[in-house]
Amino acid sequence: MEEKRVSDSRTLMTDLVLPPDTNSHGTIFGGRVMAYVDKIASITAMRHCRMPVVTASSDSFDFLAPIKLGEAVQLEAFVTWTHHTSMEIFCRIESEDLLTGERRLTGTSYLTFVALGEDGKPALVPTIVPETEEELWHFKTAADRRDTRLKRRKERIDSDRRHGR
Amino acid sequence: MEEKRVSDSRTLMTDLVLPPDTNSHGTIFGGRVMAYVDKIASITAMRHCRMPVVTASSDSFDFLAPIKLGEAVQLEAFVTWTHHTSMEIFCRIESEDLLTGERRLTGTSYLTFVALGEDGKPALVPTIVPETEEELWHFKTAADRRDTRLKRRKERIDSDRRHGR
Amino acid sequence: MEEKRVSDSRTLMTDLVLPPDTNSHGTIFGGRVMAYVDKIASITAMRHCRMPVVTASSDSFDFLAPIKLGEAVQLEAFVTWTHHTSMEIFCRIESEDLLTGERRLTGTSYLTFVALGEDGKPALVPTIVPETEEELWHFKTAADRRDTRLKRRKERIDSDRRHGR
Amino acid sequence: MEEKRVSDSRTLMTDLVLPPDTNSHGTIFGGRVMAYVDKIASITAMRHCRMPVVTASSDSFDFLAPIKLGEAVQLEAFVTWTHHTSMEIFCRIESEDLLTGERRLTGTSYLTFVALGEDGKPALVPTIVPETEEELWHFKTAADRRDTRLKRRKERIDSDRRHGR
Amino acid sequence: MEEKRVSDSRTLMTDLVLPPDTNSHGTIFGGRVMAYVDKIASITAMRHCRMPVVTASSDSFDFLAPIKLGEAVQLEAFVTWTHHTSMEIFCRIESEDLLTGERRLTGTSYLTFVALGEDGKPALVPTIVPETEEELWHFKTAADRRDTRLKRRKERIDSDRRHGR
Amino acid sequence: MEEKRVSDSRTLMTDLVLPPDTNSHGTIFGGRVMAYVDKIASITAMRHCRMPVVTASSDSFDFLAPIKLGEAVQLEAFVTWTHHTSMEIFCRIESEDLLTGERRLTGTSYLTFVALGEDGKPALVPTIVPETEEELWHFKTAADRRDTRLKRRKERIDSDRRHGR
Repeated sequence: MEEKRVSDSRTLMTDLVLPPDTNSHGTIFGGRVMAYVDKIASITAMRHCRMPVVTASSDSFDFLAPIKLGEAVQLEAFVTWTHHTSMEIFCRIESEDLLTGERRLTGTSYLTFVALGEDGKPALVPTIVPETEEELWHFKTAADRRDTRLKRRKERIDSDRRHGR
Repeated sequence: MEEKRVSDSRTLMTDLVLPPDTNSHGTIFGGRVMAYVDKIASITAMRHCRMPVVTASSDSFDFLAPIKLGEAVQLEAFVTWTHHTSMEIFCRIESEDLLTGERRLTGTSYLTFVALGEDGKPALVPTIVPETEEELWHFKTAADRRDTRLKRRKERIDSDRRHGR
Repeated sequence: MEEKRVSDSRTLMTDLVLPPDTNSHGTIFGGRVMAYVDKIASITAMRHCRMPVVTASSDSFDFLAPIKLGEAVQLEAFVTWTHHTSMEIFCRIESEDLLTGERRLTGTSYLTFVALGEDGKPALVPTIVPETEEELWHFKTAADRRDTRLKRRKERIDSDRRHGR
Repeated sequence: MEEKRVSDSRTLMTDLVLPPDTNSHGTIFGGRVMAYVDKIASITAMRHCRMPVVTASSDSFDFLAPIKLGEAVQLEAFVTWTHHTSMEIFCRIESEDLLTGERRLTGTSYLTFVALGEDGKPALVPTIVPETEEELWHFKTAADRRDTRLKRRKERIDSDRRHGR
Repeated sequence: MEEKRVSDSRTLMTDLVLPPDTNSHGTIFGGRVMAYVDKIASITAMRHCRMPVVTASSDSFDFLAPIKLGEAVQLEAFVTWTHHTSMEIFCRIESEDLLTGERRLTGTSYLTFVALGEDGKPALVPTIVPETEEELWHFKTAADRRDTRLKRRKERIDSDRRHGR
Repeated sequence: MEEKRVSDSRTLMTDLVLPPDTNSHGTIFGGRVMAYVDKIASITAMRHCRMPVVTASSDSFDFLAPIKLGEAVQLEAFVTWTHHTSMEIFCRIESEDLLTGERRLTGTSYLTFVALGEDGKPALVPTIVPETEEELWHFKTAADRRDTRLKRRKERIDSDRRHGR
């Protein structure tokens, strides 16, 4: 199985918060941040596997602070874990006050993507090789997050069945 | 403390998948679905507490099937749990093939919102009163989801400290 | 000829008024409301006939009150009348002040759509069956609206011919 | 009362139909055309009265032919009639196949706008002076369209009252 | 070689500056103006050659004054020069304060486009025939602008080679 | 006068080309690229001077190759030259075929920005300090580009005066 380092697909995105990105309080709309995260994480996943990918799930979006109109938003995404046809991606979202240079962590997210082969079916992805201590931490804690995902999925199916959905 | 029923704030949204909503495979872009979900969940949260709200986190976005260009997307959101200044919202996402009427569950999500008082600080929200069996199921399982959220937040802070972020 | 009830295709849409939806006075842009109405009415028409449709005309858009930034807009559309390959749809537009819960009727519209068969030509649609008193009222007054439409179309053709367009 | 000629506020708009403007059939989305029309008609109304305006109603949108992806859309709007604080605007929508130069009338619309004074209340607008034969035709037929509008408004109010809305 | 006059393809575009078009200072975003200019210049180029075109370069965008939210933006574009498969287009950008009617020149730009034949390769375009004094001035000064363009392109290639890009 | 290195404000942006970004040929719309470039160059300029900025001009946009739907677009911008209240920014635009990893230079651009002080008037910016050979090359050739800009501006004013604009 092919192996790839985290640094081979790490991706950076910088953007400026403009009026169409904001809610009625003058801060960035939560759904807008989610759309950024899904985009940069998709690029990261495709850079890792060099195949088309689909978003399978997000385990978490944690919003820690608002981002204001006129600030820059900076996103960084990298692959934390791979398993057969799946990739887990971590994304950090920071704001930068462009007038002072002050940067703040405003959110984090984990997402999972599935690679699609030429037949449109899930296809094996290269194994990720974590190198830095931070990369290793995310790698080691991935199994726990996967257990939570599988438990959540099972519960939802049970709930749907029980409530006649 | 004021109480409110789930049905008092339940919200429905229907939309048509048009080219600007799609990725390069002709299906809806994951980030677009997330933006819909954040919007409808915000409306639901504001209908429950009648205050401004901010997205605090999403515990999960599970994408079960793609939604195609030209299909309708239908979202339903309701409050599942409240705790002091927080509300948890569940959202179901369905697609409808408008030419056949066939509907499919394509995704589900849990999000948490915080209500903001006139001073811009977190403010108490009415207690939710679940009534149907489905509402009760989401209500009873909320404590578990909250534990996972708190554990995740603690881990992230530890990780940041350890890796000098 | 197949028959369908109004309730079979009735459609609800809820959305939040964000900065990109507004004009320079902080209220929703008229053209934005029209785009919402065309979208929900298209979905309603497709749900009735289960075929692709094209907007043929709008007989009226009446704007009764502005919708403000941060308010919810709620639309409801249903089929009021059918004739061979045409469907007339009525749409009510309401605003909701999310902080007070106050709702106001802010606009109404009638639109007509034509169903397209597999050859891309107009195709017969199921006959609508009104049931409630309100549905019957819209149904009974439809012939008058159609006369106005046909007269308007004839006048426009005469005018074009006369003015060398 | 101040008078102004139709040519003083006549407005032209040309745009290119790009993917975000289209529906799933590769032609321009009806709601997109409506948004263009509302925009150009607003500009025309403001050029006539030099005050802020709000869209009061549209009496008709007639869609005569589809506009395709890659074609140009050309709109022309002019004031047809004024009455106290109201202006009626007529808009012609044409498509241009940019590879052949062929132009087609694809739609027409009448809209009414109300001018707002500095107190935000309806304010008197200059009287329109039609000059060409075409301008005169629209001017002379305006009273009929107004009668239809008023009758429609009255009917809607009756219907709402009767159906407990 | 076919010849065409400047007036055969001259294009006008009028639009209203709405919140999604603005930056955080309440004036139109520079990139938004550039997008308008590229769009109207593309239409002008296609009207001249009646073939698909691609933007090859812009020699200059000069922004002379800001355009404010709520103002109209008016663009005028015309072909200034042709050479084998290339067309140079000049574009003037004006703002109009809709409440006073005051108009100001806010920007100008030169762009070059290349026509594409049915094989997707550059194809000969009709020769432009300038008629007015202004058209002649732009035509006569075009050779100088072309020299600057070619020199700039050569320098960039040299720079890339030298710096190992 | 404060000095700053080029690396202090260098900015990277990565994005995915989605259907709303494309023209009718399935490649990115020229105006969309220009909007990206203006955004990233604005961020770079603000990072250099830590003041609000306005786009003064673009000296060149050279489009060397199309970017296709589904590819990533990667932009890199850095300050090349400063002069009193002005900053010149260079931007490289690359495409990345996400399935093969192949990257191509697809465009380059120079833009100038002016910093605005608290009174809204042009304000002095820190002097740029080029360090690498590439940075020095752009720095040394900046005077020539400035001469071209000033000559162009003078010619335009002459032309306007002569043609009664």
